[in-house]
Amino acid sequence: MLAHRHRRDAERFCEHLGRDRSLALDAVKNGGAYDGAYGVVAALCALESLARDGTETDRAIEVVAWAGEEGSRFPLGCLGSGAYSGGNALSEIEALVADDGTPFPAARDGASGLLPGVPVRHTFPAVAAYLEIHVEQGPVLERAGERLGVVTAIAGARRYRVDVTGEAGHAGTVPMTMRHDALVAAAEIVLALEARARELGECVVTVGHLVVSPNQTNIVPGSVLFRVDARSVDDARTARLDETLRAACADVERRRGVTARVTELEVRGAVAMEARLRDVLGATIAGMGLHAIDLPSGAGHDAMCLAPVSPTAMLFVPSAGGRSHVGDEYTEPADLELGVAVLSRAIVAVDRALSERN
Amino acid sequence: MLAHRHRRDAERFCEHLGRDRSLALDAVKNGGAYDGAYGVVAALCALESLARDGTETDRAIEVVAWAGEEGSRFPLGCLGSGAYSGGNALSEIEALVADDGTPFPAARDGASGLLPGVPVRHTFPAVAAYLEIHVEQGPVLERAGERLGVVTAIAGARRYRVDVTGEAGHAGTVPMTMRHDALVAAAEIVLALEARARELGECVVTVGHLVVSPNQTNIVPGSVLFRVDARSVDDARTARLDETLRAACADVERRRGVTARVTELEVRGAVAMEARLRDVLGATIAGMGLHAIDLPSGAGHDAMCLAPVSPTAMLFVPSAGGRSHVGDEYTEPADLELGVAVLSRAIVAVDRALSERN
Repeated sequence: MLAHRHRRDAERFCEHLGRDRSLALDAVKNGGAYDGAYGVVAALCALESLARDGTETDRAIEVVAWAGEEGSRFPLGCLGSGAYSGGNALSEIEALVADDGTPFPAARDGASGLLPGVPVRHTFPAVAAYLEIHVEQGPVLERAGERLGVVTAIAGARRYRVDVTGEAGHAGTVPMTMRHDALVAAAEIVLALEARARELGECVVTVGHLVVSPNQTNIVPGSVLFRVDARSVDDARTARLDETLRAACADVERRRGVTARVTELEVRGAVAMEARLRDVLGATIAGMGLHAIDLPSGAGHDAMCLAPVSPTAMLFVPSAGGRSHVGDEYTEPADLELGVAVLSRAIVAVDRALSERN
Repeated sequence: MLAHRHRRDAERFCEHLGRDRSLALDAVKNGGAYDGAYGVVAALCALESLARDGTETDRAIEVVAWAGEEGSRFPLGCLGSGAYSGGNALSEIEALVADDGTPFPAARDGASGLLPGVPVRHTFPAVAAYLEIHVEQGPVLERAGERLGVVTAIAGARRYRVDVTGEAGHAGTVPMTMRHDALVAAAEIVLALEARARELGECVVTVGHLVVSPNQTNIVPGSVLFRVDARSVDDARTARLDETLRAACADVERRRGVTARVTELEVRGAVAMEARLRDVLGATIAGMGLHAIDLPSGAGHDAMCLAPVSPTAMLFVPSAGGRSHVGDEYTEPADLELGVAVLSRAIVAVDRALSERN
């Protein structure tokens, strides 16, 4: 089957991308141009290149632009890939309402929804393999001086809300020994988590959101709310971080006369990429005289929804300064093009490998 | 001179208090009924009691309700007492504008300003002695099981703004070893300050205000702004806390690759209460068969503006739970009355002591 049978769809999609910026509603708010979008455009470019060369494959090659991976518009991450893989029930998705009040069906049928003439599908064909290309969104490739990364696994994540409740008081009149300062207690928990993650290695933990109350210069903090995000490709390590969080909370409760209540918001296991597909990617890169490193993905991707239902692998290109989820995220054009070149060859190599297995 | 010559003014003031709640505009926002107001009402009650008993004093006894001690309405603390003592220039005060846009002269001449018939004074007589009674606003008396406190000194204060700037990044993709997390750096500074204050003793330090940016669960904190409030009756101790703050900032800059910029907002020296006046207060209390403890005032008071221009002393009664600057601050009526009884006798004792000195 010729890859170029998909070319017309690709051109229509590119026109659509250029015409209607509201597609960005599904992406990170104030985010950049590469996260997610690069994967779609790179796949289209790869198919164009295969079609241009007249390359034949045994299987149909499809490009997917998954909707709502970030959960920025509708309150559910991996909207499209979750629906495809069965992780998200269609009835749940149909009932979602965006932050701006738009019901899901209206958004799907509206200007930034389905392309004209594309029908709503309720059943999905199985795929023989799934490849995803993405900007790294972290600094590892750049710091290592590498241009390509083969993803080993997508990190599992645990998220928590922690409410520390102490006792507010006048900053001038309550002696240090009589205080139940919620912020110093929270600071100890933050540092305990950081120290543990550094000690364990191969995991990250972040307190990105923290709010002090009443947040007045002259009042001892009465309460602090913060959120914890722990990730690792090794679920045992996120479990260790869970233990550290709970132990640190118990410790400040005992020593500081505060309460530190932990609410678990999310637990998601790590998802390994398929070994054989990774090998094909690696061999393709080596065959082109290029070099790649193996690295885990700390960020979630649609690939983690596909992995349970299909052999799945991911390829990374560098992010300048490791920056992502910000407006000025950037990847060198040469790196973007290199990713497309590798993807084109990898598509063919995967198709061949699957045929050889059968 | 008979104390009751002031009685008519006192009655007018009490009526005014009852009639016009907008007086509270000058007090702590959402604050309680005792902070400040108790001192004025207690002084009026003390004079009523002296007048009722026909007690004579050698000197005129005046009650002062200082305006704007908190700096809540106009952006200048100790508005009235600072004007009286010369610390605040009248021309500066006349130029102040309240948060609601009211110019100072309009507020002074309006409904909650000067009492009818009271002229604006531009010069002030010296006083032979100044006594102030106040709720403690802290937990020391209550925890010690005491009902009276003689203030040794009003703590000096240093206030700072600290801007910690690190590097924002994706919470999943930036390895722990490549992070420049502004919040963990700030947490270390917060804990270094707390540990130092506990070690030094007789001082307090508070980070009551702290704001994380961008404050997103999935983004490593790029910057943190916080404010530090350090107080002690011993200026050497606030100087030690200043050193600790700067050392902790330099330490996180070196170890964590962040910047931690310290901006000094305020430096105010400690103000000792006059020893002879404190002795008179102590002897008065002992003479009534009562007990008091000496304690510093962590909070600022008008007395600190009076001390440079007049012998000054302060008496504290307990605050329930040490709570103040909150709507439910409370002091037992019996404690309020005890304060008035001590103040009445102390006024007479101070008057006698001053006469004996001459």
